[in-house]
Amino acid sequence: MPAREYTPRERIVYSAAQVVRERGVSGAGLREIVDRADAPWGSLQHYFPDGKQQLIGEAIGWAGAYAAARVEEYAAALGTPTPGALFAVMAAQWERDFARRGFAAGCPLVAAAADVAADSAALREAVRDAFAAWTAPLTAALRRMGVPRRRAASLAVVMLSALEGAIVLSRTSEDLRPLRTVVRELRPLLDAAVPGAGSGRRA
Amino acid sequence: MPAREYTPRERIVYSAAQVVRERGVSGAGLREIVDRADAPWGSLQHYFPDGKQQLIGEAIGWAGAYAAARVEEYAAALGTPTPGALFAVMAAQWERDFARRGFAAGCPLVAAAADVAADSAALREAVRDAFAAWTAPLTAALRRMGVPRRRAASLAVVMLSALEGAIVLSRTSEDLRPLRTVVRELRPLLDAAVPGAGSGRRA
Repeated sequence: MPAREYTPRERIVYSAAQVVRERGVSGAGLREIVDRADAPWGSLQHYFPDGKQQLIGEAIGWAGAYAAARVEEYAAALGTPTPGALFAVMAAQWERDFARRGFAAGCPLVAAAADVAADSAALREAVRDAFAAWTAPLTAALRRMGVPRRRAASLAVVMLSALEGAIVLSRTSEDLRPLRTVVRELRPLLDAAVPGAGSGRRA
Repeated sequence: MPAREYTPRERIVYSAAQVVRERGVSGAGLREIVDRADAPWGSLQHYFPDGKQQLIGEAIGWAGAYAAARVEEYAAALGTPTPGALFAVMAAQWERDFARRGFAAGCPLVAAAADVAADSAALREAVRDAFAAWTAPLTAALRRMGVPRRRAASLAVVMLSALEGAIVLSRTSEDLRPLRTVVRELRPLLDAAVPGAGSGRRA
C-alpha cells in the first residue's frame, strides 16, 4: 500500500482483497483478513454490519478501482503511447509482483468470479462492475492513441482477457513466460490498430 | 457426460469438477459432490481415502484430459484446419455451454488455481499439469496446420490465455460478447502464423 495513513476500514477492505487473491472468497477467513489489516476484531462488525458479503463486495470494488487507476497512470507515463506499449506495462506490473512476492497471489477479480458467480448475484455484479471500471479507462486510453472507437472497446476486452488468462498460467506454472508470451504476440496486433501506424499496420 | 455407463468413482470425479466449476475448491462441499454423482456417501471414503485433496487433484486431472481430448476432436473435425478456425470452435464450445446452461459454471482449472495455488503445492502442480496436458495437443495441432514450432507454442499460450480470460468476462457479465470479441480479434493473428497463408499474412 502507498505511504499515507489508511483508516482501519480501508485497511480491512485492502486486506480482504489481498486474502481473496491468495485463497478465493470461500477460502478467505475473516480472522486472517482482520489480522493482516492490523485492525481490532470488533471493527469488522462495526464497519461491515452485513458481514462477509458486504466486505467482499467492497474489496471487489476496490480492486476494480485500483486496476483502473493503474491503467490511467501507466497510459499517462508512456513515452511512446501505443496500445502495445500500454499492454506491455500492464503485464510488467504482474511480472514485478510475481518476481518480488512469489506466485501466491493472483487477480482478485478472477478469484472472486470463480467462487461467487454461481451463488451470489450481488457479488457477481460487483465483479462485472469492477471489470467494467477497469475496461473504461483502457478503452479511453486506446481511443486517445488513435484506435477507432469500436476497435478500442474490442481490444480492451482482448487485453484484459489475455492478461487475466496469462496471470493464471504464470501463477500455476510459477513461470513468467506466459505473461511475456502474450505481450510479445499481441503487441503487433495492438499497435496495428492505430491507423497509419506504419510497419505494424494490419494486413 | 457421454452415454456409456460410468463407474461411481468416475461419476464422483466428474461431479467434483462440475461443483468446482461453480463454487471453486474451498466452496465445493463433499456432500454436494457425492449427491450429484448419485453415489453412496461411503464411496467417497472408499475411493478417495486421502479425502478432498485427492478427489480435487483427480478432478483437475480429469479436466485437463477432457480439454485436451476436445482439442484433438475439434482439430480433426475442421473442414479448413486453420489456427483461427480451431480457436473459434474452442470458444464456441463455451458459448454453447453458457447459452444452454447459463453462466453458473466457469473453467474448473481457473477456479482451482484461484483457491489452491497459494496453499497446496500438490494441487497447484495438478493445475499446472492440466494446463500442460491441454497445451500439448493444441501446439501439435498448430504445428500440423503449418505454424512454425516456436510460434506454435507461443500461440497456444495466447489462445488459452485469451479463452480463459474471456470465459471469466463472459461469465461475470452474463454476456457472450467477450468470447466472440477475442475470436474476432485473434483470428487474423492466428491464421497469419501459417507461412504463405495469403490475405491473413502478417505485416
